[in-house]
Amino acid sequence: MAKMEDILGELSEVGRLVDPFMEKALANMVSSDFLEIVLHQVKTGGKRVRPALVILSCEACGGSREDALPVAAAIELIHEYSLIFDDIIDRGEIRRGKPTVRKLYGDIMALLAALHYRESISELVNQSKKPLELHALIAETIKRIIEGERLDILFEQAGRREEYIVKHRYREIDFSDYLRMIEYKTAALIEAACLAGAIIADAPPVQCDALAKYGRKIGIAFQLIDDLLDIFGEEKTFGKKVGKDILEHKLGNAIILKALQNLPKEKREDLLEILRSEKISEEDVRKAIKIISMTNAREEVYNMALTLVEDAKKSLLGLPVSQARSKLEKLADFIVKRKF
Amino acid sequence: MAKMEDILGELSEVGRLVDPFMEKALANMVSSDFLEIVLHQVKTGGKRVRPALVILSCEACGGSREDALPVAAAIELIHEYSLIFDDIIDRGEIRRGKPTVRKLYGDIMALLAALHYRESISELVNQSKKPLELHALIAETIKRIIEGERLDILFEQAGRREEYIVKHRYREIDFSDYLRMIEYKTAALIEAACLAGAIIADAPPVQCDALAKYGRKIGIAFQLIDDLLDIFGEEKTFGKKVGKDILEHKLGNAIILKALQNLPKEKREDLLEILRSEKISEEDVRKAIKIISMTNAREEVYNMALTLVEDAKKSLLGLPVSQARSKLEKLADFIVKRKF
Repeated sequence: MAKMEDILGELSEVGRLVDPFMEKALANMVSSDFLEIVLHQVKTGGKRVRPALVILSCEACGGSREDALPVAAAIELIHEYSLIFDDIIDRGEIRRGKPTVRKLYGDIMALLAALHYRESISELVNQSKKPLELHALIAETIKRIIEGERLDILFEQAGRREEYIVKHRYREIDFSDYLRMIEYKTAALIEAACLAGAIIADAPPVQCDALAKYGRKIGIAFQLIDDLLDIFGEEKTFGKKVGKDILEHKLGNAIILKALQNLPKEKREDLLEILRSEKISEEDVRKAIKIISMTNAREEVYNMALTLVEDAKKSLLGLPVSQARSKLEKLADFIVKRKF
Repeated sequence: MAKMEDILGELSEVGRLVDPFMEKALANMVSSDFLEIVLHQVKTGGKRVRPALVILSCEACGGSREDALPVAAAIELIHEYSLIFDDIIDRGEIRRGKPTVRKLYGDIMALLAALHYRESISELVNQSKKPLELHALIAETIKRIIEGERLDILFEQAGRREEYIVKHRYREIDFSDYLRMIEYKTAALIEAACLAGAIIADAPPVQCDALAKYGRKIGIAFQLIDDLLDIFGEEKTFGKKVGKDILEHKLGNAIILKALQNLPKEKREDLLEILRSEKISEEDVRKAIKIISMTNAREEVYNMALTLVEDAKKSLLGLPVSQARSKLEKLADFIVKRKF
C-alpha cells in the first residue's frame, strides 16, 4: 500500500517545481499591499497533481521538463483561480486546512485577487513555447469549468436564495447530465493539463489525442471516487467532512444519483426530501447515508471508475515506454485505490 | 455645439462595428441557457468609445479597420467585464438605464458570466494579427484595472462591512494617490485601446508611444471631468445621479479632494464627517456640494483636464494627417466640453 501512495509523493515533488513560476507571475504588477492577499491561495498548499501531469505528459512525448514549467504553472493557477471563486460562491471558510482567501480578506479582495490570477495565467502562457495553441486551449477549458460550476450550482436542491437559481434549479437530473457536469467541472482541466504537456513537446496528433483521452478518463474517475469518498470516506483519512455534498444539497454526486436510480419510490422520496430541506442536520446526513447504503451505488460507481482507469491506461500504450509514462500509469491506478 | 457632440455619434457608429465580434465570441462555447445571461451586459448599450479608439488609432497609423476589429472587440469586452464586476462589488442595480446583470440574474450568475467574458477576450486576441503583444498588453492592463478598483474601494470612507476593507481604508489621500488610482482604473484601458490600434497597424515605436500618451492623457482628463460632472452636472443631461460619489463615501473624486485641500480646517472636517458617516442623506449631499462650492476646486480640476487634453492633441502631431487623426483630436476636445 505504501508503494501506491508513493506515486502521489513523487508527483507532488515534480508538481512543486512550478511554485516559483506561479509566485513570480503573481508577484508581477502587484502593489506590495495586495501581494499578501494574492499569494495566500497558492501558499495554502495543494498536491500539485495538475502541473505534474503537464510535466509528465510533456516528458512522455519526448519534451523537456524545462519547457513544460511555465504552462504547468499556468494550469495549476487555473485550478487555484477556480478554488478562490468556488469558495466565494459556496462561502467556504476552510480549504486545505487553512482559512480561505475570502475568510481572511473578504469577498471583494478575494474576487480581485482571483481576477489577478487570470492575468498571471495569460502571462505564463505567453512565456511558453506554444502560446497561441495554449491560449486557445486555456480559454476553452476555463469556459468549460465555468459551465461545470454553473451546472453544479443548478443541480443543488436547496440552500441558495438567488431568485434565478431557485427558479432554474434542476429538479431531476439523469446520469448523463451529471457526467457532462463533471467532465466540465473536473475532467476538462485534467485533460487540458495532459494535452498541454503534449503540445509543448510538439507531439504528433495521435499522442496528443491519447494524452487528452487519458486525462479526461482519469479526471472523470477522480471525481467519481471523490463523490464516493464524500459519502463513504473515513473523515480522518479523506480530510473532508463526510456527507458534505448532502449538507450542500447536491444532486450532482454520483453516489447520490445512482442511489436515487436504484431505490424504491418511497425511499427515493425520503432521500430527496432530505436534500431539498433548507436546513440539513447531522442526523439527516446519517439517515441519508443509511438510505444510500441500501443500494449498490457504491459498487456501481467504483466499477465505473475502475473501467475508466483501465481505459485511461490503455490509451497510454501508444506512447513510447518511459519513466514518465509509467508514472502516469501508476497515477491512474492510484485514483481508484486512494482513500483520500 | 451640435458639431461637438457629433463626434460622439461618429465614434459610436465606428465602435458599434465590434458588436457582432463581441457577440460571436461570447456565444462561443456557451450553453443555450447561459447565453441570455452572458449577452445581457453587451446588450445594455454603451457608447463604444474604446473600440472606436482602437480602430481610429489603427487607421491613424495606416492600418486597416478590418484588422483592428477583433482586438477592438476585445478591448470593449474588457470594459464590459469590468462593469459586471463593478456592479457586483457596488451592488449596482441600474447601468445605462437598464437592470444590471446581477440585478436580473443574481451575483453568482453575474460572476460566472463575467468570467466567461474574460475567455472570449482571449479568443478575440488570438484572432488578431499580433496576438503575443496584445495578450501581454491586455494582461498588464487588466492587472492595472484591478489595482485601480482596489484603490478606489480603499479610498471610500464608509459603507462597507468587510473587516479587511474597514481596517485598511485610506484615511487621507493626496492628489498623487488619486492620480495613480484613476490612471489604473480608467486611463489604463483607454491607453491600451490606442496602443493596441497602433500595434495592429505595425506602427513604429514613436507612433505607438504617441498614441499611448494620447490615450493616457484623455483617459485621465475623462475621469477628471466625470468627477466634476458627478458633483456639478445636470442630472438630466449627465444621466447619473448627482453626488453619487458623495453617497458612496468616495474620497477618490478629484473635486472632493481638491476641495478638501483648499478648505479651511473646520469646513474640511464638516465635509469629511459627511463622507465618513455610514448613512448619507440627500440633505447631506446638498450640504457637501455647498461646502465644495466654496472652493475653486471646479476651476482647478477643469483646467487640469484642459491641459491634459491639449497635451494629448499635441502628441498626435507626430502622426500623419488623416481623417482618423482629426477624429481623435475632436474626441479630445469633446472630453472637456461634454455635459454628460
